[in-house]
Amino acid sequence: MRVALTGCGFWSRFQIAGWREIGVPVVAVHSRNPERVRATAERFGIDRAYTDLNRMVADGGFDVLDVCSDVPGHLPAVLLAAQAGLPVICQKPLSDKPEEVARMAEACRSAGIWWAVHENWRFQRPFRVMRGWIDGGEIGAVYRVRLTFLQSFPVFDNQPQLKEAERFILSDLGTHLLDTARYLGGEVDRLFCLAARVRPDVRGEDSASVLLRFESGAHGYLEMTYA
Amino acid sequence: MRVALTGCGFWSRFQIAGWREIGVPVVAVHSRNPERVRATAERFGIDRAYTDLNRMVADGGFDVLDVCSDVPGHLPAVLLAAQAGLPVICQKPLSDKPEEVARMAEACRSAGIWWAVHENWRFQRPFRVMRGWIDGGEIGAVYRVRLTFLQSFPVFDNQPQLKEAERFILSDLGTHLLDTARYLGGEVDRLFCLAARVRPDVRGEDSASVLLRFESGAHGYLEMTYA
Repeated sequence: MRVALTGCGFWSRFQIAGWREIGVPVVAVHSRNPERVRATAERFGIDRAYTDLNRMVADGGFDVLDVCSDVPGHLPAVLLAAQAGLPVICQKPLSDKPEEVARMAEACRSAGIWWAVHENWRFQRPFRVMRGWIDGGEIGAVYRVRLTFLQSFPVFDNQPQLKEAERFILSDLGTHLLDTARYLGGEVDRLFCLAARVRPDVRGEDSASVLLRFESGAHGYLEMTYA
Repeated sequence: MRVALTGCGFWSRFQIAGWREIGVPVVAVHSRNPERVRATAERFGIDRAYTDLNRMVADGGFDVLDVCSDVPGHLPAVLLAAQAGLPVICQKPLSDKPEEVARMAEACRSAGIWWAVHENWRFQRPFRVMRGWIDGGEIGAVYRVRLTFLQSFPVFDNQPQLKEAERFILSDLGTHLLDTARYLGGEVDRLFCLAARVRPDVRGEDSASVLLRFESGAHGYLEMTYA
């Protein structure tokens, strides 16, 4: 199997390193930014560097497209992969518009291609161990799931674009916490969310509190901040 | 100052001990239950024991009525005190019906009497210290208040009536947590609440999760269980 990757920002280096770790070569990279794609290709010894995504896909020679671009880049890249019949894996959040996610899903379904999302949190060992305790009945019936992620890590140093995001922490961290909550507690039937902007120098919300009711009747609470 | 007390259940002994601690004698006690009022009067060396509340109030000889009865007893006792022009202090929760609380408030206001509630949590030292930190600007702007009270203390051993309460933990513990949240975070403009019954042998909810937004924009989360 060979992979091509679009988007050469902060996370691309972890994606490329990840593919290598499991013995899958990344044979082509794309970014609209010529310097960035050149630097990434050089760093990882990748021969083919593109600034035109259509061209990379048309040239082919790989089996999966890894979409590691910013959020607005997800929809066109996934639709292009579907059109080319190319299996695709995409960075989270897939989109900030549910209708765009539905379009991606429909395109991939129609094309009969495999489509996945980079959602890694639920696979982290502590969460898998907890899920094992639940499945094994070791902790009895779960009636509350609480996940807190409270920190002031300088995310903006590595990902300055997050300062400008209209939807910030719910998209950046909330996606992970919501997915992990579903992994541990099952599907959700009610959700209440409060968002707040605490730092004065960010555009979107940097603090959020989410109350959930799972279909099981259990309660969930997710708390997050970068403030 | 002299006090009369109505309601000789679990909490009355702490009320009577509390009055004594500040040098205020409890001169009369009332309970509908003859054995209970006799036991309480004996234990604390109180001369006057009544099973008829109207009678106790008519006999007089005290300056404050301390209402320590179960919740349904609060409204008639407070109205009786107002009618007699007698200052009154009442156990929490005042009522499970907002309109009953409004009636008590109106009766006491019209009678021009002092009316208070037994709400002790906000006066506990840790909360007063926290309030001091907030007032002194020592911890900066508060943007989240989280209060959790998770335990399996056998409350039913001392207060078996709680097992039958239609509204259980929100009334028993929630009142304290909500008052403390207001003390620390200020007034609330939005509230979402989830309640659940976890133990099969109680009538009301024994677990609850409350999400708040304070007028300041800060978020609040209250979590409680006896399950």
